[in-house]
Amino acid sequence: MQAKKGIAILGSTGSIGTQALEVIEAHPDLFDLQVITAKQNSTLLIEQALKFKPNAVVIVDDSEYQKVKDALWSEEIHVYGGADALNQVVEFKEIEVVLTAMVGYAGLEPTMSAIRAKKNIALANKETLVVAGDVITKEAQKYGVNIYPVDSEHSAIFQCLAGEFHNTIEKIYLTASGGPFRGYSMAKLRSVTKEQALKHPNWEMGQKITIDSATMMNKGLEVIEAKWLFNLKPEQIDVIVHPQSIVHSIVQFDDGSMKAQMGLPDMKLPIQYSLTYPNRVASSFPRFNFLDYPSLNFEGVDQSVFTNLQLAYDCLHVGGTSACILNAANEVAVDAFLKERISFIDIQNINQEALQSIDPIANPTLETYLEVDLITRKKVTEIIGSIS
Amino acid sequence: MQAKKGIAILGSTGSIGTQALEVIEAHPDLFDLQVITAKQNSTLLIEQALKFKPNAVVIVDDSEYQKVKDALWSEEIHVYGGADALNQVVEFKEIEVVLTAMVGYAGLEPTMSAIRAKKNIALANKETLVVAGDVITKEAQKYGVNIYPVDSEHSAIFQCLAGEFHNTIEKIYLTASGGPFRGYSMAKLRSVTKEQALKHPNWEMGQKITIDSATMMNKGLEVIEAKWLFNLKPEQIDVIVHPQSIVHSIVQFDDGSMKAQMGLPDMKLPIQYSLTYPNRVASSFPRFNFLDYPSLNFEGVDQSVFTNLQLAYDCLHVGGTSACILNAANEVAVDAFLKERISFIDIQNINQEALQSIDPIANPTLETYLEVDLITRKKVTEIIGSIS
Repeated sequence: MQAKKGIAILGSTGSIGTQALEVIEAHPDLFDLQVITAKQNSTLLIEQALKFKPNAVVIVDDSEYQKVKDALWSEEIHVYGGADALNQVVEFKEIEVVLTAMVGYAGLEPTMSAIRAKKNIALANKETLVVAGDVITKEAQKYGVNIYPVDSEHSAIFQCLAGEFHNTIEKIYLTASGGPFRGYSMAKLRSVTKEQALKHPNWEMGQKITIDSATMMNKGLEVIEAKWLFNLKPEQIDVIVHPQSIVHSIVQFDDGSMKAQMGLPDMKLPIQYSLTYPNRVASSFPRFNFLDYPSLNFEGVDQSVFTNLQLAYDCLHVGGTSACILNAANEVAVDAFLKERISFIDIQNINQEALQSIDPIANPTLETYLEVDLITRKKVTEIIGSIS
Repeated sequence: MQAKKGIAILGSTGSIGTQALEVIEAHPDLFDLQVITAKQNSTLLIEQALKFKPNAVVIVDDSEYQKVKDALWSEEIHVYGGADALNQVVEFKEIEVVLTAMVGYAGLEPTMSAIRAKKNIALANKETLVVAGDVITKEAQKYGVNIYPVDSEHSAIFQCLAGEFHNTIEKIYLTASGGPFRGYSMAKLRSVTKEQALKHPNWEMGQKITIDSATMMNKGLEVIEAKWLFNLKPEQIDVIVHPQSIVHSIVQFDDGSMKAQMGLPDMKLPIQYSLTYPNRVASSFPRFNFLDYPSLNFEGVDQSVFTNLQLAYDCLHVGGTSACILNAANEVAVDAFLKERISFIDIQNINQEALQSIDPIANPTLETYLEVDLITRKKVTEIIGSIS
């Protein structure tokens, strides 16, 4: 019998985190949940801890610490508070895989800590690679750590590369649903509302990534993520709009053959694969049926309307801290949009302005990224103050 | 530097054979062409021999032997005549892979000889597995021989299984173009002509397989072939009509994930892969572009009109010599159709009648197959005589 795999989930109360717990619950013979963490949703974190009895929980928001501590005092569960605790819990020796499912830039430091503790990473926090792909991939190589993608597109590419790592990738196609505003003109995009932007046609996701999908920034971040995960040049990465979200992405090899990974849009599949790789495990996830989808459609992206995608490619060409600037600007802008302080179209304009007004720094260290992230947030907050 | 791979092509003058020679010509550093053979096209065989300078050629039709011998006397090329010579040339020690690209049942004995000589098989002759899959797969296992599929659908499945052989296949989908008569009613099918049947919408192939595509018998034979190649139950094999022939087939694993292999319809790709597996080799084959195919379509097969497909599934359930009967009946019927002695719809009716009037034999040996093949051909010839 196989030993159970020790798992830590950073961000267990979010969309990916809760689905990861469903996967773990379905396979008690395979997984040993060691750690779960949450930013501030103490109620759900407590509920999860009482159900799954992990070794430890972390509540990042210190003001919620006592509540969590009190609720779990009778259980043999260690309770920690504050962001720094994330860097320590990932070091537990029982952990084999750390699923990084926090939102945004906050994932960077704990991911780095997990890599340095020689834990394999199931990476759901794409911002980590977007901001600091250069440093992260070098550290992963240095510590002999594998990074298993959880994003459905990157999981698709990774699945298609099984048994093909010795072969040459000619290019990859990342598929994009196109989001709720596919086919919109710039004029039409100007008047969309927060409610419209939060209605993704195919995927149930958190608010930040749902807005990023609507602005195509999510696809831009994925292009950068793909560059680092699969060691590709910008011109080897193409984006194709596929409104049904059934074909999750495609690899084209140098013999011209293409492999695609397909299925109903369900994040539990890539989550499970990232935890069981190289094995697949029987699941009861609903199956795709061709007869329900008589037509799978594909079209180009209108980059003249959705300018975020081009900004991401620009960052790949410029390198250095430029993607860090783009990511920080976008996080602040999306937050302001969700607070209804700026319009939908302001998001991409602010991203562009941030990239134009802050000079990128070449060969950054982790410290450089932290600094550039702060500078960008300050700058973008000023820009937003001036327009809202 | 890698040693060149010794190749024999049985059926070098046919559609697959000539395309295989194009692949070999494009990679003189990879391949060492040892043997080419032809049934009766001595002119092309001579031309090929003078160009590629193989170690040996076989012309199966004895009446053409002297012509080939005379043409090649000044070259250091061994020339053999007659079908039995096929069984001997595959034994040459320099041969690593035997590409079986003959048409129909004639491929069975030389394939068996190649397996017994411990040569890996690049299998383009699906009838070998259709007729005698049980015996062939057992012998391949016994002699430690790999069978690499060349049929585009089976190559697609095989490519999708790279790196996944330890995982469980839930089912496979073989795609079918639907042929020139997709969507036809039985009434409409009654009046189709030979010229119409020979116009395949997507693939350039030999006459036999083109007719088999039009009658859906080809897909039925492929279902049987897939059963043996991938060790599947009938209910794990599904057929889906995909008129564009871009998605060449799909595997669904037990976690629900599906992998598809895609590309423009071009047999050179699966031929090359069968010769270079597990490596891919850079090619100049035209690339697929999503923007040229805004819609990929999928629909079910109307088995009430195209009854051949159901006959193939019936054979899988019955087992024994039933698929041998179906194949022999179909070969004779297609030949009669090409000679305009019977109508298009007669083909499937004759196949059905043959299966109903000849009792299948369980646990057949190779000799049983040879005998049943002969009996069936005789019976079907009588049936045709009575209606034409």
